[in-house]
Amino acid sequence: MKILVINGPNLNLLGQREPGIYGEQTLESINSDLSARAAELKVALSFFQSNSEGEIVDMIQSASGVFNAIIINPAAYTHTSVAIRDAISAVAIPTVEVHLSNVYNREEFRHKSLIAPVVLGQIAGFGPQGYELALKGLMGYLMKS
Amino acid sequence: MKILVINGPNLNLLGQREPGIYGEQTLESINSDLSARAAELKVALSFFQSNSEGEIVDMIQSASGVFNAIIINPAAYTHTSVAIRDAISAVAIPTVEVHLSNVYNREEFRHKSLIAPVVLGQIAGFGPQGYELALKGLMGYLMKS
Amino acid sequence: MKILVINGPNLNLLGQREPGIYGEQTLESINSDLSARAAELKVALSFFQSNSEGEIVDMIQSASGVFNAIIINPAAYTHTSVAIRDAISAVAIPTVEVHLSNVYNREEFRHKSLIAPVVLGQIAGFGPQGYELALKGLMGYLMKS
Amino acid sequence: MKILVINGPNLNLLGQREPGIYGEQTLESINSDLSARAAELKVALSFFQSNSEGEIVDMIQSASGVFNAIIINPAAYTHTSVAIRDAISAVAIPTVEVHLSNVYNREEFRHKSLIAPVVLGQIAGFGPQGYELALKGLMGYLMKS
Amino acid sequence: MKILVINGPNLNLLGQREPGIYGEQTLESINSDLSARAAELKVALSFFQSNSEGEIVDMIQSASGVFNAIIINPAAYTHTSVAIRDAISAVAIPTVEVHLSNVYNREEFRHKSLIAPVVLGQIAGFGPQGYELALKGLMGYLMKS
Amino acid sequence: MKILVINGPNLNLLGQREPGIYGEQTLESINSDLSARAAELKVALSFFQSNSEGEIVDMIQSASGVFNAIIINPAAYTHTSVAIRDAISAVAIPTVEVHLSNVYNREEFRHKSLIAPVVLGQIAGFGPQGYELALKGLMGYLMKS
Amino acid sequence: MKILVINGPNLNLLGQREPGIYGEQTLESINSDLSARAAELKVALSFFQSNSEGEIVDMIQSASGVFNAIIINPAAYTHTSVAIRDAISAVAIPTVEVHLSNVYNREEFRHKSLIAPVVLGQIAGFGPQGYELALKGLMGYLMKS
Amino acid sequence: MKILVINGPNLNLLGQREPGIYGEQTLESINSDLSARAAELKVALSFFQSNSEGEIVDMIQSASGVFNAIIINPAAYTHTSVAIRDAISAVAIPTVEVHLSNVYNREEFRHKSLIAPVVLGQIAGFGPQGYELALKGLMGYLMKS
Amino acid sequence: MKILVINGPNLNLLGQREPGIYGEQTLESINSDLSARAAELKVALSFFQSNSEGEIVDMIQSASGVFNAIIINPAAYTHTSVAIRDAISAVAIPTVEVHLSNVYNREEFRHKSLIAPVVLGQIAGFGPQGYELALKGLMGYLMKS
Amino acid sequence: MKILVINGPNLNLLGQREPGIYGEQTLESINSDLSARAAELKVALSFFQSNSEGEIVDMIQSASGVFNAIIINPAAYTHTSVAIRDAISAVAIPTVEVHLSNVYNREEFRHKSLIAPVVLGQIAGFGPQGYELALKGLMGYLMKS
Amino acid sequence: MKILVINGPNLNLLGQREPGIYGEQTLESINSDLSARAAELKVALSFFQSNSEGEIVDMIQSASGVFNAIIINPAAYTHTSVAIRDAISAVAIPTVEVHLSNVYNREEFRHKSLIAPVVLGQIAGFGPQGYELALKGLMGYLMKS
Amino acid sequence: MKILVINGPNLNLLGQREPGIYGEQTLESINSDLSARAAELKVALSFFQSNSEGEIVDMIQSASGVFNAIIINPAAYTHTSVAIRDAISAVAIPTVEVHLSNVYNREEFRHKSLIAPVVLGQIAGFGPQGYELALKGLMGYLMKS
Repeated sequence: MKILVINGPNLNLLGQREPGIYGEQTLESINSDLSARAAELKVALSFFQSNSEGEIVDMIQSASGVFNAIIINPAAYTHTSVAIRDAISAVAIPTVEVHLSNVYNREEFRHKSLIAPVVLGQIAGFGPQGYELALKGLMGYLMKS
Repeated sequence: MKILVINGPNLNLLGQREPGIYGEQTLESINSDLSARAAELKVALSFFQSNSEGEIVDMIQSASGVFNAIIINPAAYTHTSVAIRDAISAVAIPTVEVHLSNVYNREEFRHKSLIAPVVLGQIAGFGPQGYELALKGLMGYLMKS
Repeated sequence: MKILVINGPNLNLLGQREPGIYGEQTLESINSDLSARAAELKVALSFFQSNSEGEIVDMIQSASGVFNAIIINPAAYTHTSVAIRDAISAVAIPTVEVHLSNVYNREEFRHKSLIAPVVLGQIAGFGPQGYELALKGLMGYLMKS
Repeated sequence: MKILVINGPNLNLLGQREPGIYGEQTLESINSDLSARAAELKVALSFFQSNSEGEIVDMIQSASGVFNAIIINPAAYTHTSVAIRDAISAVAIPTVEVHLSNVYNREEFRHKSLIAPVVLGQIAGFGPQGYELALKGLMGYLMKS
Repeated sequence: MKILVINGPNLNLLGQREPGIYGEQTLESINSDLSARAAELKVALSFFQSNSEGEIVDMIQSASGVFNAIIINPAAYTHTSVAIRDAISAVAIPTVEVHLSNVYNREEFRHKSLIAPVVLGQIAGFGPQGYELALKGLMGYLMKS
Repeated sequence: MKILVINGPNLNLLGQREPGIYGEQTLESINSDLSARAAELKVALSFFQSNSEGEIVDMIQSASGVFNAIIINPAAYTHTSVAIRDAISAVAIPTVEVHLSNVYNREEFRHKSLIAPVVLGQIAGFGPQGYELALKGLMGYLMKS
Repeated sequence: MKILVINGPNLNLLGQREPGIYGEQTLESINSDLSARAAELKVALSFFQSNSEGEIVDMIQSASGVFNAIIINPAAYTHTSVAIRDAISAVAIPTVEVHLSNVYNREEFRHKSLIAPVVLGQIAGFGPQGYELALKGLMGYLMKS
Repeated sequence: MKILVINGPNLNLLGQREPGIYGEQTLESINSDLSARAAELKVALSFFQSNSEGEIVDMIQSASGVFNAIIINPAAYTHTSVAIRDAISAVAIPTVEVHLSNVYNREEFRHKSLIAPVVLGQIAGFGPQGYELALKGLMGYLMKS
Repeated sequence: MKILVINGPNLNLLGQREPGIYGEQTLESINSDLSARAAELKVALSFFQSNSEGEIVDMIQSASGVFNAIIINPAAYTHTSVAIRDAISAVAIPTVEVHLSNVYNREEFRHKSLIAPVVLGQIAGFGPQGYELALKGLMGYLMKS
Repeated sequence: MKILVINGPNLNLLGQREPGIYGEQTLESINSDLSARAAELKVALSFFQSNSEGEIVDMIQSASGVFNAIIINPAAYTHTSVAIRDAISAVAIPTVEVHLSNVYNREEFRHKSLIAPVVLGQIAGFGPQGYELALKGLMGYLMKS
Repeated sequence: MKILVINGPNLNLLGQREPGIYGEQTLESINSDLSARAAELKVALSFFQSNSEGEIVDMIQSASGVFNAIIINPAAYTHTSVAIRDAISAVAIPTVEVHLSNVYNREEFRHKSLIAPVVLGQIAGFGPQGYELALKGLMGYLMKS
Repeated sequence: MKILVINGPNLNLLGQREPGIYGEQTLESINSDLSARAAELKVALSFFQSNSEGEIVDMIQSASGVFNAIIINPAAYTHTSVAIRDAISAVAIPTVEVHLSNVYNREEFRHKSLIAPVVLGQIAGFGPQGYELALKGLMGYLMKS
């Protein structure tokens, strides 16, 4: 069982960037916690972060036939990227969308996700724990299907 | 540790109602699975379902000083109830919003949640497993605070 | 053959309430005329009126397996209730929406029905006679299916 | 008692055109059923179908002083014709708007009727039976006035 | 002279609920102050609070023939209830709408009142004193008519 | 000097149709008054009325090389006809748009003219006298160019 | 018979200001031509130009009981002044709105007139001749009433 | 204790202007009644009316350090003046907004107040009595702070 | 193989009408070039032009069972005709929509096609050559199916 | 070289008004700093501040033939004044728009400038230094032309 | 004669990705067919596909002075990329926009092309054949200019 | 003192691209002029241009701890990039947004900047001189803080 974890633009700054909104844990630390949790579940994780919409599309495409599922926090591209949406539709791998903060009590333009209609489910507002919930949710889904 | 689980209108019909969208498990069965999981975590759950906006507001109010957290699937009231939103703000108990289906690939009016801006987090699209993720997410949050 | 007739908020005031818009006949009198007409058609009617959205949802749910069809005048809830819409979808009983007045020459917000997309048909503007047309329309539909 | 029945664009194709939406009965057959029903009620019907907005306006105008009422299914012109609306207002003959399908669960632009605010009432979703309900509704209205 | 004072959802929590917005006085205390003031004016007050839209509609209906006027703080239902609006229109009793806070410097959706077009007047932003101003305003109005 | 006067749908009913809005003079009488006035100015008028958008387009096209100017009251087609707009642009004959009533204090949809951006000028609200003002305005314009 | 002619902001620059849009005639020259024409009709004109919304309101108010009619070119205030609209409603003197250019083929915000719904009629696109048409239109109207 | 009472455009016409909407009492009479009431409360009132947005801004600015509070009926400028809004914010004197009529059952553009978000409170629909309620509301507020 | 070529309103003026936008070739010349090209492909073309929406609907209906495909340039009716859209849906003949100019760099209202959702494909901006591309595209499509 | 500096409503309160947004320097002090800077550049400045839209229009008009350029901070009138916009277009003097604060992170209605489309350039968010940048920008522009 | 063919994000997945919408032919196969067709016309094609908006902009820029024309299927970037639009405007090389599917009967956001206003023409709905039509259309255009 | 100057997509084409809008100076020449000016002010500049959103995000991130300020002309990404906005917020370095042209008199979609709410200030319409004004503005700001 292999799952790909994709983090979008500016998430490499976690821990430094506006900790009042995004928390104080770095992405490395979040990933390492998540790997530990995945190991217990016998799941191998691969991590990818990019600030480039095109590279994220490339990575989603390359997941086809390699990964059983995708966990993605598209960050800013949530609200602007039809290309990432189309990539997720195209590879047809079960995908979960995660947001660290509760995007619904921030600026109006963050309330609309172009990604949401093509994913299995979304999880928002739980901070780094959201990735773990996504992992658990995906495992439940994959077990069932 | 006590958590209140509120289900909104028409969720009492789960298992009968449009199983293509909402799945085949009844609410009783979902609740019973969730109770079992909560017991493992040393959490006591109380369940409440109502088709009435006013009764849900009453119940949220009565949770004050009794429950440590709320899990709510507001169903249809997600999109129309300022009263439930105000009740959640008023009692200031950590609350998670759950939706069984992925509301973002259904009718346009289901994309807007009046509840979302006042909750801790939302989980959508995972079917009955969503309640369990919410429970886990709340426990993580309460442990941390 | 049993049909449930549901009247929404403020329709219990018919005859007193703004007779210029809603006419001078009371709801009791309308119901009694309709029962007489139904008897000729060998149909049994049950009547329900409530000012509460939740009670109307409860009643629609309870119609499942008991009634062959529903005639509903959702009144104010036509424009605001996703819960009643979801209840009608959930029970999947043939339903007709009736409005006494021509809602399309009144305030803008009355032009939009949340209920209309899930019913068999709508009848508006015929005053109390609208219920009789709905009854006849339902009978025609049920005969055919 | 004379009533004019007007059918708008493409309704001459009934029976051939998208039977999943519009049913399998031809317009001739619908008209003939309706005439039979009207004869029982001692009402004479005249039928008119046109694909031209202007001809429909001409016909409505010519109804003045000749017909006691109009039944109109404006089809596509429901959503685009101010001219037909103005003609109905101008002749001031009681008019009922009929739609075969439930226009409210079709494309968004079919939800708005320019005709509705100037007619006595609307009936939608009952298939060919809708004309009969309109006839009955008009008779009830004319008896009362 | 009898006046009915209706308070909508979550106003029973006054004093506890977000005191920064709604103040620290309880509803009981507000009502008792208002009663004292009314007594000086030889007016008898009845108080009603409910979290249920339907119960508020019921209460407004029952005011007919019993009360000379209504003071209503519809709270959350201000923005969502056509049913309460229709009830006020139906009973045709002079009604004043009160809001404790200045709703116009809060969330966008609180700027729109469905109730306002059918009441005599509105008073917003004066805290508990708003009820007293409403009482005084109603007395002035009733004296004049 | 020859000017074509075009009247759109339902204007043939002038004098009968809603005299409160459109006045009591018939179109024949208006035309005859206007002819008299034109004769004084040494202008020959031709009159055309049609309820058909297509016929009005045909007539505008045929004016090319025959008439020096057009006076048009597009009536209902003011708000819905791109075809008439395109015809006026295509023939490039100076055209004045006339409305009998003040369209700006009627229904919202009558406030928008698709024709206005391609004409020389508009005159609205002066009743039948509007045609005479249009004639005078056109003469002034043609004298100057 | 006395008529007040009001010109709004920047119209004092006529002849200098963007002659491609507004023409090359100065306001003095336009007024003097108009006076000559009025003298033939036995009408006395008074002229007023101001760049100030408040002064235009003052002037309209002062017309009450002094002038039989008003011709106004509100220029920029057409699109932004509720105060001028209210003044025209308040004095209830027949008023005609004139625009030199065809405002409907300019910027979108110039298509909406706040003044139009409260005047007798509008004339746009005829350049300086528009005032003369307005004068003639007003005389026709006053003769008739 | 000194309070400034500002009345905006066209309110100097009260008693003459559309008495069906604004009542039959003149502004002088309203002011004199209000002064009498203020005298009882040991408050000195100053009155200012202007049709000019700029003069109203000037007056609000000059209130700084002189008046304890402002009562303003901005009339037409309610809906169009950011300058008056900014002046009220700038002087930071407690201000109450008054409207004679119920602006919420008039034209759509009167439902939006640019002033409301920066005042202490609003009172609408009580006719001239609204000023007295505002005075009382301000006194209550000033006593409390 | 027979294909019907329909040209909408004002296209009969090609060559005369605004050559800067529509080119200098007449419709006859375009049709004759297209016929020559079709002859090479062993396709028989029939040509129809009308300024009337109703006649275009009639013609599309009459194509059923006679033509293998339709090429249509709906011109102005592209943006306003639901009737033509419904006719194309009804006859279910493969149809291609052609526009001479690039409608997307013209007025906003020309960006929306009511026809586009029901055709096989659209071609815009290639001038008269667009018809030839449509012919070729249709042939490719018909060969494949 | 002479440049006119215009400051709009409430800017005379600088230093007193909301210093958190607008800074603590008075307008006199800003003007005096700016004059010193201009003197170095051999430019003579004239200063004008008004709370009246009409006076600002008057002043812009009077700049014609006297000043080489205008620096304007239209303050509140930025968002509401077509009259000032038209005045700037009319005099055709190079004009720069300055805002002290970053208007784009304030209320939504402050994001739209009616003035911006007719000026040479805008400078926002630099506090009092913005005027100096505008002066420098204008000098650069005038040197080049 | 050299033409550059650019394919946007996810088009490298053609043949695998949702074949119901995009067909079963791979991009390599489409390109190879198109090359063969181009060879007959003595045109050399270069192919470029990228998932990155920036790389597509780079490629369009590099076409300047090298290619005579561009065929572009911007895929997802059609609806979101101002950068690609600006690049096409900047290089001023004749460009045709191609879409495989009929974008007008898919999601609403796919109906709007940011690219369309700056290209020569668009072709949509013809599947892989669309590229061939674009090639032919471009050749016709280049021959003529 | 070190400042990073970032230029977005297509700005590498300056001098070639639409010189009517963007001027005839190349980016190299602009940068070199700006460096000379910076040297006088004892500021070191670094220049970066990219057509890729992701690379611009990368560069902004890498500025953290290295540069004292950023000058950015986001070009097309001004209107579409939440990622660049988030990067600027994340690094919290004082940033100025520059536009060569006056974006407010171009297409509607260029009037909205996603970047503006998170920068210190914006400068638009001054051509290449805008960068120098930004440099000066930043120096003033940095001196003061």
